Amino acid sequence: MNYRSIFRIIGKVLWVEAVFMLPALVISIGLQEWGAVRGIAITMAAAGMIGYPLNRTPGKRPDIYARDGLVTVGAAWLAVSLVGALPFWLSGAIPNYFDCLFETASGFTTTGATILAEIESLPHGLLYWRSFTHWLGGMGVLVFLLALNPLAQKDSGENMHLLRAESPGVRASKLVPRMRESASILYLIYIALTLLEFLLLLIGKVPVFDSLTLAFGTAGTGGFTIRNDSAASYSAYAQWILIIFMFLFSVNFNIYFLILLRQIKKAFQNSELRTFTLLFCVGTLLIWASTRHYWSNAEEGLRTSAFQVVSIMSTTGFVSTDFDLWPEFSRALIVLLMFVGACAGSTGGGMKVVRVQLLIKSAGRSIYRAIHPNAVRLVHLDDEIVDDATVHGVDGYILVYFLTIAAATVLVSVDGFSCESNFSAALSCMSNVGPGLGAVGAVQNYSGFSDFSKVVLTITMLIGRLEIYPVLALVAPSVWKK
Amino acid sequence: MNYRSIFRIIGKVLWVEAVFMLPALVISIGLQEWGAVRGIAITMAAAGMIGYPLNRTPGKRPDIYARDGLVTVGAAWLAVSLVGALPFWLSGAIPNYFDCLFETASGFTTTGATILAEIESLPHGLLYWRSFTHWLGGMGVLVFLLALNPLAQKDSGENMHLLRAESPGVRASKLVPRMRESASILYLIYIALTLLEFLLLLIGKVPVFDSLTLAFGTAGTGGFTIRNDSAASYSAYAQWILIIFMFLFSVNFNIYFLILLRQIKKAFQNSELRTFTLLFCVGTLLIWASTRHYWSNAEEGLRTSAFQVVSIMSTTGFVSTDFDLWPEFSRALIVLLMFVGACAGSTGGGMKVVRVQLLIKSAGRSIYRAIHPNAVRLVHLDDEIVDDATVHGVDGYILVYFLTIAAATVLVSVDGFSCESNFSAALSCMSNVGPGLGAVGAVQNYSGFSDFSKVVLTITMLIGRLEIYPVLALVAPSVWKK
Repeated sequence: MNYRSIFRIIGKVLWVEAVFMLPALVISIGLQEWGAVRGIAITMAAAGMIGYPLNRTPGKRPDIYARDGLVTVGAAWLAVSLVGALPFWLSGAIPNYFDCLFETASGFTTTGATILAEIESLPHGLLYWRSFTHWLGGMGVLVFLLALNPLAQKDSGENMHLLRAESPGVRASKLVPRMRESASILYLIYIALTLLEFLLLLIGKVPVFDSLTLAFGTAGTGGFTIRNDSAASYSAYAQWILIIFMFLFSVNFNIYFLILLRQIKKAFQNSELRTFTLLFCVGTLLIWASTRHYWSNAEEGLRTSAFQVVSIMSTTGFVSTDFDLWPEFSRALIVLLMFVGACAGSTGGGMKVVRVQLLIKSAGRSIYRAIHPNAVRLVHLDDEIVDDATVHGVDGYILVYFLTIAAATVLVSVDGFSCESNFSAALSCMSNVGPGLGAVGAVQNYSGFSDFSKVVLTITMLIGRLEIYPVLALVAPSVWKK
Repeated sequence: MNYRSIFRIIGKVLWVEAVFMLPALVISIGLQEWGAVRGIAITMAAAGMIGYPLNRTPGKRPDIYARDGLVTVGAAWLAVSLVGALPFWLSGAIPNYFDCLFETASGFTTTGATILAEIESLPHGLLYWRSFTHWLGGMGVLVFLLALNPLAQKDSGENMHLLRAESPGVRASKLVPRMRESASILYLIYIALTLLEFLLLLIGKVPVFDSLTLAFGTAGTGGFTIRNDSAASYSAYAQWILIIFMFLFSVNFNIYFLILLRQIKKAFQNSELRTFTLLFCVGTLLIWASTRHYWSNAEEGLRTSAFQVVSIMSTTGFVSTDFDLWPEFSRALIVLLMFVGACAGSTGGGMKVVRVQLLIKSAGRSIYRAIHPNAVRLVHLDDEIVDDATVHGVDGYILVYFLTIAAATVLVSVDGFSCESNFSAALSCMSNVGPGLGAVGAVQNYSGFSDFSKVVLTITMLIGRLEIYPVLALVAPSVWKK
């Protein structure tokens, strides 16, 4: 294990986290929220004091393997969550540290599950930090470092392994040959889209602080808002803007890069984008049909159905209506869409549309092979043959995904909530959605769970956001042998 | 497609079904249940009149492929269910034909899910037939034909494909080189164990008809009883006998064959048997601990916990207490055990323990490969290397298993029952257990579902019992092309 590299990177991550708390500190000072000021200031000092010497760990070992990349990413995300939770705790805003950790991991992993019933009374500095964790976690903390790091020009194995371990999707692809440029382009597109949403919300007369935090929550596909009723009280215009941007942030960012290169045709031929769009349209129509008696007019029905469908598929988790009261068929569809999630290479979570495509094709092939044992059948995607190793890798990933949800469901069932609540909480955290059904439904929150269950769900969120392996690498015996 | 062979076999199956209705007819005549007599007699005549000429389909095409085997098995099971439902319908005992079909498919597939709240008032001839479908379906209708068929001495490809398609498990293994002998040995062991259970229940002063139908229900791991409260009112002695025999019928029958050959050591080294036993013991202890406040004494607690655990794992589905009222942790364990099911090569359902073993090993390998991309890791079972094709086949099977349950859950959700009820109904039918949670809980039944949902669940039961592919082969486009 290359401990020195790992320590250096974690040190830098903590250092950057401290810097990113500065706006929150400024807001709290400006609004004279002294409790929050104290919490944020102490955390910044602590993060800097731990991060700076760690980042200066002496010695250089250039060899870095896949396993080091996984462990680095897993440990870095654990570290930012543990430290990022401190302002909530030290300010006294959230008295229980497990609650603070849950809330912060929920932020960084862009889950958006909350243990707060009363959000609006939180100091604005903390509200800013809470929403900003979504924005930072959405694109990835380490990808951000990569975008900044001038040494990344070298395209070392270190950077490639980090990028692979943190980026969602089946195949981590570089947009351009140089990795640092890839990371920078990703972040520039990300910043541009976030700004655009912020401005469009402002134009719709949404207050500045609301617009900013909504833009953070949408961009990271997180789901935190600064209102107790999530997004229900915003205007129809604002909700349509949110629908459009939740959709845009669920799309593989490579598509935008292709559009920037004016390869429009190639961009829209992407089968994952098409499947995602199809699922969004069919899901919206089915739910609209199933809930047709609930709405006072067609626009409201279409808007609310589309809002909840794209909110769940993008794994944002904004809520514009209490979908827990919908007919069972709509609720079952919501659960199904929670599994699917967004496109690979977006900021969204879930299994990812491309994996579901490969799952269906792989399942079809299993059936075909049982019927025609001697026939050869290849799996195609986007007119390319997907090699067997990738197909089996996806099958394995999905099975581990299911097993993780099953394990989390059984573990949190000790708290005695309903089967539906436990399962949907585990699924929602694994897919980084936020709300579930029943006790964790659209207008509920996670405060009812015990500390034990909150820790289980915190780990589940991290497993889901980092696509399983970086977190499991932290506890895999084979990593720590010798 | 080799239609002639398929017609001949379906004809013979119907013919045999008619013969097996004879005891039910005799019972109904003896008890002067004239409605049942009419229903059974007409069905026997019809099955004979359709079956006889079908079985005489002229012409011979010796070539039979895997796909023909799958289609034959799928079509034969559909035929026996459609015809086996007629006595309930024609006698007027169950007025709705979809209910009759559900009940009969539930019998043959050894699910034991019922649409009847009032069972005890059913004519005894029909009660006998209802329980006997479990016994016949448990070991397999076509395996039975094979045991009888003198031509099977030839070990034709036809018989091999049929045996493969109907037998549960990862690898269909022949006990002895000749297939007919294998089938005969299986049935002899089956008959001997059934008789032994029947006698032991009689010794415990369980009435004759109860003992007989309980033995049928246990042997097939079905779950129908002739009492409205399932198995709750039988004595502690009788319940212990049921526990022992539910366990025995969940075990791969090859084990008994090894014991008969005095290869005791080899029999008990079987890792699937050990895993099944371990799961049974751990499951019983966890549930006993979780429900410890519910019992008046230790024996009752241990007996009821063990009874429900082995009833669910064996996928029998007998009920000795309303486990729907248990703490959520116990209910979650019940759901988990429903997925697992019994051992391959037994009469039980579910995914089968050996598949779960391979799933865990395969998942472990996925994680290992993500961490050590260049390392080679083989999957071992019983000191043998499992080849990759088998591991991937099992992964594929389990994914199709999950997809089937998800599809059934969404389809039956149109009836508006709770998420938990729909999911557990779909899972319970797929795993051929019987009871689920909520609306289909331990003391409930399936009568509340619409005809549409009953058909969906009927198909789900058949998919589960035949291990997916024979039923899907009936609707696979590639089978019917050209």
